[in-house]
Amino acid sequence: MKSLRIVTFLTDFGLSGGYVAACEATIVRISRDARVLHISHDVPVGDISAGSLVLARVAPLYPEAVHLAVVDPGVGTARLPVAVSTVRGDYLVGPDNGLLLDAAAALGGLQDAWTLDAVQVRTLAGLPLGGVSSTFHGRDLFAPASALLAAGIDPGSLGDPLDPASLVRLDPPSVAHSVDAVTAPVIEVDRFGNVGLGVHFEDLLPPDRQGSAITSFSVEIRGDGAPEWTARLVNAYGELRAGELGLIRDSWGQAALALNGASAAQCLGVGTGVMVTLTAQDAPADEA
Amino acid sequence: MKSLRIVTFLTDFGLSGGYVAACEATIVRISRDARVLHISHDVPVGDISAGSLVLARVAPLYPEAVHLAVVDPGVGTARLPVAVSTVRGDYLVGPDNGLLLDAAAALGGLQDAWTLDAVQVRTLAGLPLGGVSSTFHGRDLFAPASALLAAGIDPGSLGDPLDPASLVRLDPPSVAHSVDAVTAPVIEVDRFGNVGLGVHFEDLLPPDRQGSAITSFSVEIRGDGAPEWTARLVNAYGELRAGELGLIRDSWGQAALALNGASAAQCLGVGTGVMVTLTAQDAPADEA
Amino acid sequence: MKSLRIVTFLTDFGLSGGYVAACEATIVRISRDARVLHISHDVPVGDISAGSLVLARVAPLYPEAVHLAVVDPGVGTARLPVAVSTVRGDYLVGPDNGLLLDAAAALGGLQDAWTLDAVQVRTLAGLPLGGVSSTFHGRDLFAPASALLAAGIDPGSLGDPLDPASLVRLDPPSVAHSVDAVTAPVIEVDRFGNVGLGVHFEDLLPPDRQGSAITSFSVEIRGDGAPEWTARLVNAYGELRAGELGLIRDSWGQAALALNGASAAQCLGVGTGVMVTLTAQDAPADEA
Repeated sequence: MKSLRIVTFLTDFGLSGGYVAACEATIVRISRDARVLHISHDVPVGDISAGSLVLARVAPLYPEAVHLAVVDPGVGTARLPVAVSTVRGDYLVGPDNGLLLDAAAALGGLQDAWTLDAVQVRTLAGLPLGGVSSTFHGRDLFAPASALLAAGIDPGSLGDPLDPASLVRLDPPSVAHSVDAVTAPVIEVDRFGNVGLGVHFEDLLPPDRQGSAITSFSVEIRGDGAPEWTARLVNAYGELRAGELGLIRDSWGQAALALNGASAAQCLGVGTGVMVTLTAQDAPADEA
Repeated sequence: MKSLRIVTFLTDFGLSGGYVAACEATIVRISRDARVLHISHDVPVGDISAGSLVLARVAPLYPEAVHLAVVDPGVGTARLPVAVSTVRGDYLVGPDNGLLLDAAAALGGLQDAWTLDAVQVRTLAGLPLGGVSSTFHGRDLFAPASALLAAGIDPGSLGDPLDPASLVRLDPPSVAHSVDAVTAPVIEVDRFGNVGLGVHFEDLLPPDRQGSAITSFSVEIRGDGAPEWTARLVNAYGELRAGELGLIRDSWGQAALALNGASAAQCLGVGTGVMVTLTAQDAPADEA
Repeated sequence: MKSLRIVTFLTDFGLSGGYVAACEATIVRISRDARVLHISHDVPVGDISAGSLVLARVAPLYPEAVHLAVVDPGVGTARLPVAVSTVRGDYLVGPDNGLLLDAAAALGGLQDAWTLDAVQVRTLAGLPLGGVSSTFHGRDLFAPASALLAAGIDPGSLGDPLDPASLVRLDPPSVAHSVDAVTAPVIEVDRFGNVGLGVHFEDLLPPDRQGSAITSFSVEIRGDGAPEWTARLVNAYGELRAGELGLIRDSWGQAALALNGASAAQCLGVGTGVMVTLTAQDAPADEA
């Protein structure tokens, strides 16, 4: 038995209102045996970077799939609807606003790209041609295209080839290194209140300081004052005492600030985009 | 291979507490090959109209299915548990409180109706007969009935036929038209803060004013003062400048007030049920 | 056709951030035909008791399954990762912190237990051995183990047998009975604001008072004053007048305080853990 083709689905639609269901219904109607697996529909509204981050993290964990992603504040404007293929053999479908490309890179690299032509897509899907809104391309264009790709349709039949180099790309997080400090933005606050920073844990220290006896970092929020907090390097949340701030390699390899059983984000008063400076502190003599 | 039978599922249960899972588990236990697709469990608590609205929008997008819907403040009282069939060949299962009938209409029209007899349903489903609570018919009656219908059981074996004309119906939104104005209630606020009004976009203007050079509408909230806002007619959210209020044909064909990248509902201070009056404004000379 | 093997999934991860998707992707990648059914990912953060409660309620409603549950504040510390089998033939996978055992009891009783050895699990799953974080055993260890069990792998190949008696157990809710009163903690507040108490509805009265003409209970919150409320015994929410507090046998057999169309928890100002004393009131003469 051939396994059902997987379509993953990520949006900022939320689960009320029927937006997600409208897309899933459309996919299943076109490609009855497609298996829709939901990544998240809680991406902050219109936050392309946040959607891109989650998609790039989890897409490589699935078997070969069609990844449908819609965080699309420009719906109905000149931004292109696109499908791209990856070296690993996946497809990504969504708006050309940067949402898809970090995931493509995580899936072995971007291979080919196509614009989605509404007439071609809807004709192949057996949908009425006049049914494309200017507010909901998820339902009207992206879901049908994803269903067709899941059914094995050649992407070249959905629209014209596009130069992959012409696709919109997001700027990577702005990170600044000095001798013993790194400044990076908060890129994520999760449900536990962990404060994910836009720097890999391994890059916290310059190469010549790696391996030195660093046990904690001073933490300066927004760069507008003296360091306000100290974060201890730990491997697990459970190593932290109540109220003690920790610096940890998070589940995605990034540096993150955390409390044990409480929200570091709330305690520090930070959200996505806030700049944080971490300065290495050598172990005090009495602890070394 | 025969495809799995689809059971869609909409409630106001929320996703904590295990209510949704209890129903899904029951469906899968009775009809192992049923495929449960979740529409939404975030319907505002007890809001039958809101549940009806979402169900009617998305049900027609699925292939033939059993639609299980439970927004049921009257659970355990005299309100009837029912199943209805549609002209298109679908079933809808839930309480007889108006929740199901707009969806039936959207599925080609209501055809037949049956009450659900707990003894008959639970006997057929192989469930203990004493297990019907007066607080959770979703798990104890509606989910088993849906699973049986998904398995191909004749609806007549679940309970007595019911005159479809006797079913409880919701009042449609109260809309008032004058020469160049329409007053309609807010019927929905989505995650983006779009303010959906209970009037079709095409019905904003009387027939003899259609096609005239209307570019904006004045917006009066609650009818208790002078118009407070002006909304510009746009096709896409992205056409709006920051802070500019727009009037748009939303994804469901309704008239909606929207901001670009912000919540119109929050800005206008409105929620479901608030009456809004839109008055057509002719294009000013310098824009015509 | 053999049905897909069911893996249920319960966490406190929330649906943003990609944690749930990372686990589901891993399961599907390892065991392509596993069918993941989500119980809830809205368990209050780190609340093992709350997760245990929901899992124990719904697990018995599924057909034979692998139940993956992760509420794991001790991830990365000395707490053991475990799999247990039940008399009914199910498996439960998660941290050894008490989360799984009430569900095992509800599934006919705990049978055998094993620790999960990361090297054995990941070798069998075809995953890189170095990939175990100290922050996300859901993705790195528990999901792979669940996928393997769903694929029919012998649990003994995942790690060493463990004495079931050595597993961590949660204390049951602390309930105190007197002649005509019971004191029990709030164990749950659901989306409707119902206040679930840690006492079975049938245990509200001592055996010799059962069947007497009790029609209401006085309600004392936190035991620090005179009874503040009266709750009327009802069978259905809809029997309550607006603003009238009710005491009801909830959907899980527990005693619960409820309002009709409003939140009893909000009205009473209570949340999980607050102690509530219910004292039986004989029917007043004019109602008897």
